[in-house]
Amino acid sequence: MAGPLRLGVAGLGTVGSAVLRLLEQNGALVAERAGRELRVVAVSARNRQRERGVALGGLRWYDDPQALAADPEIDLVVELIGGADGPALALCQAALAAGKPVVTANKALLAHHGAELASLAERAGTTIGFEAAVAGGIPIVKTLREGLAGNRIGRVYGILNGTCNYILTTMRETGREFEVVLQEAQQLGYAEADPSFDIDGIDTAHKLSLLAALAFGCPPDFAGVYTEGIRHVSPLDIAFASEMGYRIKLLGVARLTEHGLEQRVHPSMVRFGAPISQVEGVFNAVVAEGDQVDTTLYAGRGAGGGPTASAVVADLADIARGLRLPVFGVMSARLTPHPPAPMDRHYGAYYFRLMVVDKPGVMADVAACLRDHEVSIEALIQRARNPGEPVSIVLTTHETAEAQMTGALARIGALEAVLEPPRMIRIESL
Amino acid sequence: MAGPLRLGVAGLGTVGSAVLRLLEQNGALVAERAGRELRVVAVSARNRQRERGVALGGLRWYDDPQALAADPEIDLVVELIGGADGPALALCQAALAAGKPVVTANKALLAHHGAELASLAERAGTTIGFEAAVAGGIPIVKTLREGLAGNRIGRVYGILNGTCNYILTTMRETGREFEVVLQEAQQLGYAEADPSFDIDGIDTAHKLSLLAALAFGCPPDFAGVYTEGIRHVSPLDIAFASEMGYRIKLLGVARLTEHGLEQRVHPSMVRFGAPISQVEGVFNAVVAEGDQVDTTLYAGRGAGGGPTASAVVADLADIARGLRLPVFGVMSARLTPHPPAPMDRHYGAYYFRLMVVDKPGVMADVAACLRDHEVSIEALIQRARNPGEPVSIVLTTHETAEAQMTGALARIGALEAVLEPPRMIRIESL
Repeated sequence: MAGPLRLGVAGLGTVGSAVLRLLEQNGALVAERAGRELRVVAVSARNRQRERGVALGGLRWYDDPQALAADPEIDLVVELIGGADGPALALCQAALAAGKPVVTANKALLAHHGAELASLAERAGTTIGFEAAVAGGIPIVKTLREGLAGNRIGRVYGILNGTCNYILTTMRETGREFEVVLQEAQQLGYAEADPSFDIDGIDTAHKLSLLAALAFGCPPDFAGVYTEGIRHVSPLDIAFASEMGYRIKLLGVARLTEHGLEQRVHPSMVRFGAPISQVEGVFNAVVAEGDQVDTTLYAGRGAGGGPTASAVVADLADIARGLRLPVFGVMSARLTPHPPAPMDRHYGAYYFRLMVVDKPGVMADVAACLRDHEVSIEALIQRARNPGEPVSIVLTTHETAEAQMTGALARIGALEAVLEPPRMIRIESL
Repeated sequence: MAGPLRLGVAGLGTVGSAVLRLLEQNGALVAERAGRELRVVAVSARNRQRERGVALGGLRWYDDPQALAADPEIDLVVELIGGADGPALALCQAALAAGKPVVTANKALLAHHGAELASLAERAGTTIGFEAAVAGGIPIVKTLREGLAGNRIGRVYGILNGTCNYILTTMRETGREFEVVLQEAQQLGYAEADPSFDIDGIDTAHKLSLLAALAFGCPPDFAGVYTEGIRHVSPLDIAFASEMGYRIKLLGVARLTEHGLEQRVHPSMVRFGAPISQVEGVFNAVVAEGDQVDTTLYAGRGAGGGPTASAVVADLADIARGLRLPVFGVMSARLTPHPPAPMDRHYGAYYFRLMVVDKPGVMADVAACLRDHEVSIEALIQRARNPGEPVSIVLTTHETAEAQMTGALARIGALEAVLEPPRMIRIESL
């Protein structure tokens, strides 16, 4: 067996501590599989005193993470600091420039600087492992980069944020409002004190841009992701969705269309019965559609110490075995940017809900707006109430261009009998 | 880019033709990902005249597959002949002995000769890719060997045979008998003319022994798999299962217990709502439970040209990139045989169905047999009929040792009022 692979770990939060714990518990087993020992020799974190439940004795401690890159007795740097820029970026740049492979769980960093870092890694003859950056313990990076290497991918989509999926699942199960469930999720530790990264879809968009890079051979294009979060999803919409045979999920979807690369993150109606509709709570799932393999699904825990550490160690084992794959599956120079498909050109079915005054002629007006924009109605629910009281009307449409739908909804929203802005949720065809 | 990896393909049935077609269609893309061209230079098959929908012009043709191993202009042999012994085994041995990597879809071969071939490959400094041997296009071999390398696996199980899953799904949907649905599956090409390999669970057992080797670091032990097929599953049991909240699936399950390695293939009741219960028709799925990652699920098409070719090409791409992993994840010398856990020691819950004469005291007798063997009843359904007519009694038990259950059922089966041998189906705890 070769000598140990000597690791420097930057960041000892939940994930960093879990990596150390994993290597303590399963180190011998991992060494058999990797062909050599994975040995943590140095760490860097902000607070030396904090109790982390792992033994740090015998490890070199650096206050400055950059020192890990410079230490000649470190072969590989594990970056678990987080953040799209700042110390995480500086550390990765320094490690790669020194020819050391980097393993990271940092989706924000790679969504913003992935192409540049991949190119830097290649020039230095090394690589970046980022299995832990997408969908936690599910080995989806490896699957897209290696397991499905024979396929032209048509679409890749997934539930990539456990916080949002937990909130949407709980809203459905309890009928409670978004704000109430969010607070509860915060108390349970499923949502951050500042939850906007998760609930506004930014975290999902980071991850989606990495999946799209792997699937479509392009540099990650975070700026090209259309992003809409879950704040506006109401228990009423969730109940109507159930009634119509759908679940509402925050999906990230990427596909190549004739208009370019479509990357979008938004609440989606998915047909109940489609496997991904059954992925509930904090679980994540990714579906990859290949021209050879057809539809494949991968599900598991998307966050937490154990699952994320599992992904980090999978990357470490690959590198210990000598694997040096191009970061995004093909050499940097061959990554081809695709033009972003404008959201206006998105083609799909839609759900929308109106709150209207219940008086003669309202439905005729709504139907006329849809007809004028060539939107055709698939199903309709109108709840009977007392005459004169506001009533909910819910419609689903056949597939149409988003521009048509937007046009129709603008006109519908302006009708006198329509009391609130229409709520629209896209239906994903699965 | 390095020079082409020159391939010799033995066997041009559905899968072999699909591999050639994939490389025709996606060759340039695959070359980008693999870092070099995958070029088929020679083939071998029985019938030179057969129309296969792929161009064979320019390829060397060998009537004897062994010639592929000997041809100095072939770098790698793709074995798609099939069969546990005979020409497939001889070809693999010859190729490995010549230092050439082998990629195969042949589960029977590896279930029977995996350890010996792995050791041969190692001695020759090469490897065997067998992603296509288990669960078709789902990259489950890679996932267990690499993606979950940080985990101690507790249990791995799956729906590994699309024919059986199709039959069980269709029986449930139509209420028809096994024999009728089997015939239909044969007409549709979902079942072989001689279906016993599939429906008697042998194919599943082959695959399970490979999953267990990867998960538990042991040589494949096909002889140690307890195997029971689906011939005896009746529409009545399927209906009762649905009523009690279960689906019946043919599962292969492997786990390490205090009594050794449990490997079993049999119809299993799985709680409706468990993700694997929703895997229907010809789809396959595998669940791997790791100490770090918790429960992960992988689903997709388990057979067919495209999905299987996808898996073959994933292995080819790995080898083209220079990857030479130990066949079963750790070096042959470190594969540790585990003693097979006797089925008597299996511990789990059970479903069983009795056909009894409806007269006073029957239930008391049944309950007494269970009590005497310390089996405790979880639920019971008895259908009311006219007095004196035979009636179905269905019971589920709490967890108990199989030996207790077998003892109780032997006594119950011998009761005068019990008209047929009891039908027993194990409940898998998910």
